[in-house]
Amino acid sequence: MKRDLTLLTDFYELTMANSYYNLGRGEEIAYFDYFFRNIPDNGGYAIFAGLEQLIDYIKNFKVSEKEIEFLRSKNLFSDGFLNFLKDFKFRGTIYSFKEGYPIFPGEPIISVKGPIIDCQIIETVLLLTVNHQSLIATKASRVVESAKGRTVMEFGARRAHSYDAANYGARAAYIGGVDGSSNTYTDYKMGIPALGTMAHSYVQSFNSEYESFLAYAKTYPNDTLLLVDTYDTLRVGVPNAIRVHNEFLKPNGYYLKGIRIDSGDLTYLTKQARKMLDEAGLTETKITVSNSLDEYLIKDLINQGAQIDSFGVGERLITARSEPVFGGVYKLVAMENKKGEIIPKIKLSDNVAKTTTPGYKQVYRFYDKNQKAIADVVTLHDEVINPKEEYLLFDPDHTWKQKIVKDFECEPLLTPIFIDGKLVYKSPTIEEIRKTKQEQMAKLWDEVKRLEYPHQYYVDLSKPLWDLKQNLIKKFSIKGKK
Amino acid sequence: MKRDLTLLTDFYELTMANSYYNLGRGEEIAYFDYFFRNIPDNGGYAIFAGLEQLIDYIKNFKVSEKEIEFLRSKNLFSDGFLNFLKDFKFRGTIYSFKEGYPIFPGEPIISVKGPIIDCQIIETVLLLTVNHQSLIATKASRVVESAKGRTVMEFGARRAHSYDAANYGARAAYIGGVDGSSNTYTDYKMGIPALGTMAHSYVQSFNSEYESFLAYAKTYPNDTLLLVDTYDTLRVGVPNAIRVHNEFLKPNGYYLKGIRIDSGDLTYLTKQARKMLDEAGLTETKITVSNSLDEYLIKDLINQGAQIDSFGVGERLITARSEPVFGGVYKLVAMENKKGEIIPKIKLSDNVAKTTTPGYKQVYRFYDKNQKAIADVVTLHDEVINPKEEYLLFDPDHTWKQKIVKDFECEPLLTPIFIDGKLVYKSPTIEEIRKTKQEQMAKLWDEVKRLEYPHQYYVDLSKPLWDLKQNLIKKFSIKGKK
Repeated sequence: MKRDLTLLTDFYELTMANSYYNLGRGEEIAYFDYFFRNIPDNGGYAIFAGLEQLIDYIKNFKVSEKEIEFLRSKNLFSDGFLNFLKDFKFRGTIYSFKEGYPIFPGEPIISVKGPIIDCQIIETVLLLTVNHQSLIATKASRVVESAKGRTVMEFGARRAHSYDAANYGARAAYIGGVDGSSNTYTDYKMGIPALGTMAHSYVQSFNSEYESFLAYAKTYPNDTLLLVDTYDTLRVGVPNAIRVHNEFLKPNGYYLKGIRIDSGDLTYLTKQARKMLDEAGLTETKITVSNSLDEYLIKDLINQGAQIDSFGVGERLITARSEPVFGGVYKLVAMENKKGEIIPKIKLSDNVAKTTTPGYKQVYRFYDKNQKAIADVVTLHDEVINPKEEYLLFDPDHTWKQKIVKDFECEPLLTPIFIDGKLVYKSPTIEEIRKTKQEQMAKLWDEVKRLEYPHQYYVDLSKPLWDLKQNLIKKFSIKGKK
Repeated sequence: MKRDLTLLTDFYELTMANSYYNLGRGEEIAYFDYFFRNIPDNGGYAIFAGLEQLIDYIKNFKVSEKEIEFLRSKNLFSDGFLNFLKDFKFRGTIYSFKEGYPIFPGEPIISVKGPIIDCQIIETVLLLTVNHQSLIATKASRVVESAKGRTVMEFGARRAHSYDAANYGARAAYIGGVDGSSNTYTDYKMGIPALGTMAHSYVQSFNSEYESFLAYAKTYPNDTLLLVDTYDTLRVGVPNAIRVHNEFLKPNGYYLKGIRIDSGDLTYLTKQARKMLDEAGLTETKITVSNSLDEYLIKDLINQGAQIDSFGVGERLITARSEPVFGGVYKLVAMENKKGEIIPKIKLSDNVAKTTTPGYKQVYRFYDKNQKAIADVVTLHDEVINPKEEYLLFDPDHTWKQKIVKDFECEPLLTPIFIDGKLVYKSPTIEEIRKTKQEQMAKLWDEVKRLEYPHQYYVDLSKPLWDLKQNLIKKFSIKGKK
């Protein structure tokens, strides 16, 4: 379904665009970078997601007559601008990281070049789409890493921030590495495996827990996964599950697939439940747990020897509860002058980290001969790096920290998506994106992937870009009148 | 636009429904309560929102042929159930609080009665819709209360958890009390005033800040609100704004509407900026601030004497960053037996607060003669309270805490929305809901509205309901075999 997201935009994008139009500046070429400054949860990496929806938005952008009339009623917009808007299609050029790639602070993840009006109009949805999905993909990756190969299911729809957050959140979580979702919609639309069993209400609606288990087993003999904590997990829940296996499933050639525990101390309960199941010969029956899980609790449960095969992770994943904001920003980095020359722009800040890096850029990821990522280097868009030669990496803030690399490979990370308004990129399938994420994660050092206090991955500037930035800083920090 | 939310549902709602159908139990009448246990941010109240979207969802619910075929491909659902689903319309009865009302832990906010399949199918969207909007309305109310009458604008679209979170988040924030939003869509669709000015990119795109201000003033002489912190707020930003007033606005009969500061120490900068504006005779020019604001920072800024007329609140409101989860749940509280008698159901928990309150219910809000809310009393659905007589309020956990009230008024809070599948409620306009919220807030004691360590509002049980619950607890806590 095509969504009408045209007016989902900060009003100032339109007032600025109208102003540019009326000043005759609307066709001036601007350059914007999308980047972020801090990794959520003090992690060592983030995962990029949301590009496909951004592409859909730009492709389908269309201002309706009714929307034009609404804007006209504001008495702020010129007729010329409203006419222009009526036929508006994005005319710019976009380079972007591919979805599923690890991303790091300070590097441009998306580069937008185009008439300044076009750049401005897409800002709000660009930001919210990739901020949201990158947030959830990153959180999911942390959760999945902490589960160390065990199954992780996304269970959070009921606590998501409305419908899209449930759907695109499940998408992003799948890219981040979860094995499926409770959300049926994302299975229907995107093929993300949906799984589900029963709620406490199902058990309660019967006269006894045993009756409810038996009824469920009869409906789904191949998929009998029983929720055992409605009354008392160890005293009645697990024994009733075993009884259903012995009295119905086994005699009919089936096997109890699993039990789920949704409350109580999950370390203690799963250890005891495992023992009871094993003693009943049900060594293949899986134990699933849920209940306010996140990467920290999962790590602790595993460290304590909890006997868990599968985690259902809900509200803390779908809202990224520990840090629900992915702070990606979209900043002007250059303008073209009338001669078509790129004039780099900088925004200074007393907070050094908030000073933007000017210019039209490319990003290269350097890999060593073992295919491990060493550093990302942000360059000018047309710099050429020759992997046959030595290359000097240096820290842009502490330039005495240097390293000469050789025998490296390097990969440009900003890929063309739109060229002059034309879509030139074919979105991969969700499975391909998920695989990309896994492959790229394998190229990161474990030190970067550590849950807490990870090693900080290097994002350097090339010498030409570093020089450009320093020159602009010098020029503007001499406090002349602006 | 009608949204197709049919399959936005936890898969287990469908597997349970299919099981009920196949067991011939699908028409049994069940009773579910929606309630929550904890107020976000340890606040004293929450604000209910999202009912209108829940109604839309139920009204528009329709399973398409394609969705049926998708479900069929799972090889889990019987043909009978899939046929049933094809024509499914919700047949149940829903009572609900009205939007904008303060709500408290432990009371049923929405009561759903109907065939158990119908109750189960709507669960996921019911939860996510009202959880999300109540979360944001509650957060917005806290922010607005902390601003003590100053203007508050919602600015968070770019950090929202996807499109719906931006749109319905702005709606909920407006119900919660903000004065408008940066989001154009919610103005277009719902009439929530959209406002916006300029971004740093606008200023940077010109050769100088002064040029940019002048250009903006020429485009919007009646709405000249200038962002003054791109280069240096006090040294050049505010002087340039004053200069534009003196050299362009004033000579042409206009007045500088405002300035916005988006970085730096907002107490210091606004005090200095106010002084500069006043000395230039611009006493009517408003000062707007933004930059990671929330209720705590706003409170501190005001306490420190910051000179602020208007707050733009972004990511910390639209994501409810300090507590991004509203933990509303949906629990089975009764079933009807074949004779049509209501059989109350309870879910026990070692955690006393997690033990559900059984039965079909109503909620009464008691007001004293000054129209201040004293307590909410949860009753059986058909209890009658006579405000002419004395009424004994008592704490359901510590029953020796008692109070006899007289000369009170009381209002039933659960209003009929659907009766046997028929919509009987007319949704108020957003302005009416916002007004309801303001009126109801005026009925709460200030002690309940305190930002930190508020007084805990009383939610009591009537004697008949308390007795029912205690009897069920006794019956089930004698650990017999389930």
